[in-house]
Amino acid sequence: MDREHGGVYTCLDRTGEVYSTDKSVWMQGRCAWTFSHLCRLYGERPEWMEAAKSCLDFLEEHCINHEAGGRLYFTVTAEGKPLRQRRYCFSEGFYAIANAEYYGLTGETEHLERARRAYRLIYDLNNGLIEDPTGLGPKTIPETRSGRALADPMIFLNIIGIMRRVDPANTEEYDCHARECTDTIVRYHYRPELGCTLESVNAEGQPELDYTAGRVVNPGHDIECSWFMMDEANYRGDEELHKTAEQIFRLAIEAGWDKEYGGLLYFIDACGKPTEAYEHDMKLWWPHNEIMIAASKAYRDTGDEYYLNWLLKTIEYSKAHFADPEYGEWYGYLRRDGLPTMPSTKGSTFKGPFHVPRALSMTERTLTEIIGDEAAPSA
Amino acid sequence: MDREHGGVYTCLDRTGEVYSTDKSVWMQGRCAWTFSHLCRLYGERPEWMEAAKSCLDFLEEHCINHEAGGRLYFTVTAEGKPLRQRRYCFSEGFYAIANAEYYGLTGETEHLERARRAYRLIYDLNNGLIEDPTGLGPKTIPETRSGRALADPMIFLNIIGIMRRVDPANTEEYDCHARECTDTIVRYHYRPELGCTLESVNAEGQPELDYTAGRVVNPGHDIECSWFMMDEANYRGDEELHKTAEQIFRLAIEAGWDKEYGGLLYFIDACGKPTEAYEHDMKLWWPHNEIMIAASKAYRDTGDEYYLNWLLKTIEYSKAHFADPEYGEWYGYLRRDGLPTMPSTKGSTFKGPFHVPRALSMTERTLTEIIGDEAAPSA
Repeated sequence: MDREHGGVYTCLDRTGEVYSTDKSVWMQGRCAWTFSHLCRLYGERPEWMEAAKSCLDFLEEHCINHEAGGRLYFTVTAEGKPLRQRRYCFSEGFYAIANAEYYGLTGETEHLERARRAYRLIYDLNNGLIEDPTGLGPKTIPETRSGRALADPMIFLNIIGIMRRVDPANTEEYDCHARECTDTIVRYHYRPELGCTLESVNAEGQPELDYTAGRVVNPGHDIECSWFMMDEANYRGDEELHKTAEQIFRLAIEAGWDKEYGGLLYFIDACGKPTEAYEHDMKLWWPHNEIMIAASKAYRDTGDEYYLNWLLKTIEYSKAHFADPEYGEWYGYLRRDGLPTMPSTKGSTFKGPFHVPRALSMTERTLTEIIGDEAAPSA
Repeated sequence: MDREHGGVYTCLDRTGEVYSTDKSVWMQGRCAWTFSHLCRLYGERPEWMEAAKSCLDFLEEHCINHEAGGRLYFTVTAEGKPLRQRRYCFSEGFYAIANAEYYGLTGETEHLERARRAYRLIYDLNNGLIEDPTGLGPKTIPETRSGRALADPMIFLNIIGIMRRVDPANTEEYDCHARECTDTIVRYHYRPELGCTLESVNAEGQPELDYTAGRVVNPGHDIECSWFMMDEANYRGDEELHKTAEQIFRLAIEAGWDKEYGGLLYFIDACGKPTEAYEHDMKLWWPHNEIMIAASKAYRDTGDEYYLNWLLKTIEYSKAHFADPEYGEWYGYLRRDGLPTMPSTKGSTFKGPFHVPRALSMTERTLTEIIGDEAAPSA
């Protein structure tokens, strides 16, 4: 935590020292969400509430681009001066879940209002209902090529899951939008005939396999998506949707697990061709967190030991490669062979107090649901 | 070569099959330059002239963004429809050297005019004399942070080296601009007190070491820069500049060579802290090409076996790791341990007929200068 300016630094080296003072806006929102979430699960603790509040205040004071319709920046300086605005609206998504979860704890309506405003902005941007107020325009010239990104409906489904829980007054809207998200994912991105879920399809929802970007599969993303969908299927009582989510998990983990070195590959190609991203065969921490959450939920819901085995295998791999008993916290980035890139890091613009605590807490909750509280060992 | 639409595909898998039909504008220019350069060194061959012409025509017909002041796109489709415009003006740089080198062969003045137009555009953009006609604006919000990138003066110095040779009428302008480039590099980026050459410094030319981007060292870039500077020093008869160029080479290779696995690391941190780019500890083909060129030139100019040893060491590493005797051509991307990322590639948006043939031909020429033509073995 930055005691001087508020908010959180997440670029931490192996020992926890800050190696870059620039602040990730994603991580301010994710950190505020995480500590609010922990308070909800395990009871309020002053230091958790304080951490959440500090990030929320920092977001509100420094991370909103008032000249661009209230969109959020991507990075700011330690003091909160704006560094970079991106076209993608994920900063807004993490801001929404942070405010929603904190509202769930405190009942302070300004936080619900903030979450709702961001929620509508993202919905409008994702669905092309408004021009992007940043004026950045799409990365690819739309007259030549435009498409649909899995991240949009997937992250929005996650936002809905959190907001619907704290904001029952708008249940109908959330239910309707959630259906739009799952429909989009299943109809356009889930491609059982190709044995995968595609990150990008064209505007009509069809695969474009002649170029690399059209063939990218991000197994960790798919697995994360699968548990968002299982949660939604359980909420809706939709068995077919649950089965599709399980299949998304299975296709992703079977294709993405590295048979030679273990661990989940970062990107793979739908047709087995080369992937252009240099880092495609690295092992990142977060996909392993998503496996833990998705596998435990799938095991709880189906009783199929296939999922339990993947949970155990992933924990085993993570303990052997991501854990650092000497300095604590998981390494973020491993080479394909399972060794950290050097100098190793515990945090970055994308890694902070989010995926690891989310996975540990959610997996703990799910396993406790399975075995019952009374089965837990006494500390 | 794309016999149907003209130009060249560079996304090639291990066997040479095209895995993405999108075309890199950088590579159209670089390919046209390479084949013109080979004709200059080894005599005109119809297939080389044809390849150069095809890329030049494709560039002229499809890669110029006429709605943005004649700037060039970054990628286009197989047919030449525009995909992406970037803010950086390197497409324009490779277009300039391609047209200049081709003019040097053919004397067709339209190619010199094209090269000159691009040259002026880049100069004006690099020096902030015009607004970028793409309207993209800087990536980082300039009120908070602005800076100087080594790539700008360094690539411009390379462009000058080629244009000055074919366009003696403008020698004075080239000499003056070359001096500006070397002054900027030596005064702002070369940091002997930090033991490195920095990719980015602030607008005043000072290091900013609190955040990752301010500490990035790209040893391959530095080594490439060192031979551009040695060429300039030799042209100018400037011994001090030559010595500085040698020092840039030494600092980069000593810090960047991987003591554990061999090969040159892609990025390192000026202060030994973590580097945010996931791929920082990978081994890319092109830095090894730059070592070959720079080390052979430095050995020729100084007679110091230090450089010969680096040349031999790099050739040995490259033969063992980058070469593929089965399918030919170098692998582009190796993991830190020296094995290709899988599925491996021979080409990408950034790798095509440029660095490898440039290094092989330039190293051959330099070694021939040292040992003399008569010492070459008869074929």
